Amino acid sequence: MKIGKETIPHSAICTSNSETIVVRGKDLAQELIGKISFTDYFFLLVTGQEPTPAATTVLNATLVAIAEHGLVPSVQASRMTLAAAPDALQGAVAAGILGCGSVILGASETAGRLLEEVRVRADGDNNYSEAAKQVIGEYRNARRAIPGYGHPLHKERDPRVSALFGVAEAAGADMTYIQIADAIENVIPEIIGKNLMLNVSAAIPAALLGVGFPITALRGVPILARTAGLIGHLTEELQKPIGFALSYQATRDYVYDGDTPEGFSASNT
Amino acid sequence: MKIGKETIPHSAICTSNSETIVVRGKDLAQELIGKISFTDYFFLLVTGQEPTPAATTVLNATLVAIAEHGLVPSVQASRMTLAAAPDALQGAVAAGILGCGSVILGASETAGRLLEEVRVRADGDNNYSEAAKQVIGEYRNARRAIPGYGHPLHKERDPRVSALFGVAEAAGADMTYIQIADAIENVIPEIIGKNLMLNVSAAIPAALLGVGFPITALRGVPILARTAGLIGHLTEELQKPIGFALSYQATRDYVYDGDTPEGFSASNT
Amino acid sequence: MKIGKETIPHSAICTSNSETIVVRGKDLAQELIGKISFTDYFFLLVTGQEPTPAATTVLNATLVAIAEHGLVPSVQASRMTLAAAPDALQGAVAAGILGCGSVILGASETAGRLLEEVRVRADGDNNYSEAAKQVIGEYRNARRAIPGYGHPLHKERDPRVSALFGVAEAAGADMTYIQIADAIENVIPEIIGKNLMLNVSAAIPAALLGVGFPITALRGVPILARTAGLIGHLTEELQKPIGFALSYQATRDYVYDGDTPEGFSASNT
Amino acid sequence: MKIGKETIPHSAICTSNSETIVVRGKDLAQELIGKISFTDYFFLLVTGQEPTPAATTVLNATLVAIAEHGLVPSVQASRMTLAAAPDALQGAVAAGILGCGSVILGASETAGRLLEEVRVRADGDNNYSEAAKQVIGEYRNARRAIPGYGHPLHKERDPRVSALFGVAEAAGADMTYIQIADAIENVIPEIIGKNLMLNVSAAIPAALLGVGFPITALRGVPILARTAGLIGHLTEELQKPIGFALSYQATRDYVYDGDTPEGFSASNT
Repeated sequence: MKIGKETIPHSAICTSNSETIVVRGKDLAQELIGKISFTDYFFLLVTGQEPTPAATTVLNATLVAIAEHGLVPSVQASRMTLAAAPDALQGAVAAGILGCGSVILGASETAGRLLEEVRVRADGDNNYSEAAKQVIGEYRNARRAIPGYGHPLHKERDPRVSALFGVAEAAGADMTYIQIADAIENVIPEIIGKNLMLNVSAAIPAALLGVGFPITALRGVPILARTAGLIGHLTEELQKPIGFALSYQATRDYVYDGDTPEGFSASNT
Repeated sequence: MKIGKETIPHSAICTSNSETIVVRGKDLAQELIGKISFTDYFFLLVTGQEPTPAATTVLNATLVAIAEHGLVPSVQASRMTLAAAPDALQGAVAAGILGCGSVILGASETAGRLLEEVRVRADGDNNYSEAAKQVIGEYRNARRAIPGYGHPLHKERDPRVSALFGVAEAAGADMTYIQIADAIENVIPEIIGKNLMLNVSAAIPAALLGVGFPITALRGVPILARTAGLIGHLTEELQKPIGFALSYQATRDYVYDGDTPEGFSASNT
Repeated sequence: MKIGKETIPHSAICTSNSETIVVRGKDLAQELIGKISFTDYFFLLVTGQEPTPAATTVLNATLVAIAEHGLVPSVQASRMTLAAAPDALQGAVAAGILGCGSVILGASETAGRLLEEVRVRADGDNNYSEAAKQVIGEYRNARRAIPGYGHPLHKERDPRVSALFGVAEAAGADMTYIQIADAIENVIPEIIGKNLMLNVSAAIPAALLGVGFPITALRGVPILARTAGLIGHLTEELQKPIGFALSYQATRDYVYDGDTPEGFSASNT
Repeated sequence: MKIGKETIPHSAICTSNSETIVVRGKDLAQELIGKISFTDYFFLLVTGQEPTPAATTVLNATLVAIAEHGLVPSVQASRMTLAAAPDALQGAVAAGILGCGSVILGASETAGRLLEEVRVRADGDNNYSEAAKQVIGEYRNARRAIPGYGHPLHKERDPRVSALFGVAEAAGADMTYIQIADAIENVIPEIIGKNLMLNVSAAIPAALLGVGFPITALRGVPILARTAGLIGHLTEELQKPIGFALSYQATRDYVYDGDTPEGFSASNT
């Protein structure tokens, strides 16, 4: 079935002949294996460009910042899936990645779009406060949440945010988007009526957009990072399984609030 | 529902209090972000240990070697999935990872187990030829395929294999498993009756087992690597979509070999 | 980690003691197995109510209408995934389901919301033309696509649409939403400037909303239906594999439009 | 890339021209929608044949028997995934299906193969006791688990098993595989040394193989059934979310058994 106009597949990522695999214009075996780190290769795969030293540093720092945060829901889902289907590691990883959605990790891209919106609105003026007020005001009027601001746990700024911004500065990265992220945090109390601290989902695009990482690929960063974290958890799960223990604990206080047939007694469990 | 004996979830990967996130014994914000590369962090997450310089080099090289190989079936599946469900990047990545199974990428672990079997059988003797003959003979008798040997495309040794082995040697890695992998390749013609070249699925465990990467986590290496490749392809797909073009081409010569109702004419397509 | 306010899990779907499994208030072994069809059970699971005879008929008809449509992209993705990972049928089904997104099958819910919007706007008036004009005009002003209208293949009304509407009428279903769906089709040319035929993604909610199926569960109907279709395809794939043939065909005319290293010749493929 | 010998995709399931969609030789709009139940259509899709009345009854009963069993691990994984990524219902369903693996639901196929092995061994003799002893003895010698026997909860026979067998008998299904399943249960104590009750994963193939459902498609039955159950849960999750509550409860008693940095105090949580 033909859907859409394009019928010939084309791509600028990879080609090969019987002797050589070419990736992004380079000979994989001769010019990439052993010559480039995995982080730099990820940057090259996504952008077609090799990263600057600042980009390498910042991309490593953001991947490290969000790869692991303990037994969060997506890790639990992944470990439960491996417990139930231990032969298919790829299925357990996939189940964990499927939780990298809008609520928990997906805000990196939407926060990046917010930062870009403020940058465009400021139009060359590097005092971002006025532009931030306008854009946040529009979000408020549309009753949209401010992506990348507020956190269920941390009332102080998440320590990963300061660490990321410090790394970016020390690496000589362009600090524009970080300044914008700070400006937004500053105008939020006045416009929204409460403090919403800049969280790691805003810090990641703020740091990455300053080193040339594209907005369209921002959602890929938490996904790649979490894949590393999931593999750590699943390797542990294979040795010391807790998937079923998590599931047991989760429902210990479970309340059934539906109907029961006559004579049914839950106490007979 | 209680399944199994363990009821209290425990893990040695991550804990936190309101100020500090601890991963593998280290303060994430103070000791890891900006201080450790993503590759080294992956090694730390999986093993609990920081890698040696040789381990860093070899792990980077293996991840780079298999992250990308063009529009392979799992990449096609992933790009088609994004075309059909563009709002859920995580779903398209998951669909691509689900193809990292036994046939295409999953052989890394089974090949690693084969190498380990030969090492144990050799029992300290570092001439692996005799042990390889025994083990491969047993595989043949059991009509099992030799995981990590043979390749649909390359009749010569895949150039990635030589590159990986060269990187391991230059980095000063333990070459035991690489010697075993070579020994197996050498005995195959005599026992199996044809050449089966050592492929990248055997080269990866051969290199990684020499730098302390655990067998149980080997399947995670192609999964993490391919996630990076998939994000590259999906970023391109968002800009220059080919998911539906791939699907159209795939069925251009499609043959329906089932029944049809009376009067149905396919030419009326 | 605590996210959100609710901490005690509760559900009205299922409970059990050591002898009895209760689903939606009924004893599974005594009152459901052998007493209720799978389609009626699906309705009961989703709504907590047993379906009327009209609801049974319409739900069966909608599930049958969209379970199967040949080698569409999600079926191709699923068959390629099974080819690459044949041990994990659940992974191949999951890969296929991940393509049930907004573009291809997910429009059932958004189309249902459109129908409901027109119904509410008409406010008891059962001439839906005026309300349809208003709502479609608003969609046009917001440059939103009209979910459930237009089709890449069929310029005539898809024959499944007429079949579904005929079934609903013969079963004595409430025809309100079907009348609304027709009204929308009628006003589209005047407002949008071209014909967009009512497609199966609008016909499904039009039929189902008239028999008490909830809007929030509409997305589940194509997913359940396609799961049946995928299992049909994957059973065939296990016997007569075409996953790799699809992948091969898809890239036969592949164009690489990136850079190549000096001396690389594609003709040496 | 060409993998394998087959290059032209062919299928006997579906074709279409601009007016007609043909599925398994029938006109979808004219002969199937409104004429056939979803369960019968599933049988037709998988086998190419319309089911006998006994097959309809038994297939409905097996699908109803395993669609829902409360907040089992895969349902928890699915509800957590929807909580984290609420826009992608298909992702949450996929995450739930990925738990339909060898341990929890996947035993239907392996149990079916065990039943078939005993039938073939009996070689026309309809006293299956001797053949069952041989085959179970071989499983024991190979230290293989007996798929479909034993249950974490029920020490008595699961009430769903008796219900399924009663339905099959009342429907006039061929009882061969059910007799084999009983024979296996009877010989287990003598050979294995303890009672292992026939569970629902053996009852499903025992019933289905008697009505012509193919062994190769057995794994699809729990997957299709659970998809219906998952959609019930996810519809409830959208209205009364508990995904994060499940995750919170799961780790309330979590024990971190790794190292901590100097000065770190967990009590400061």
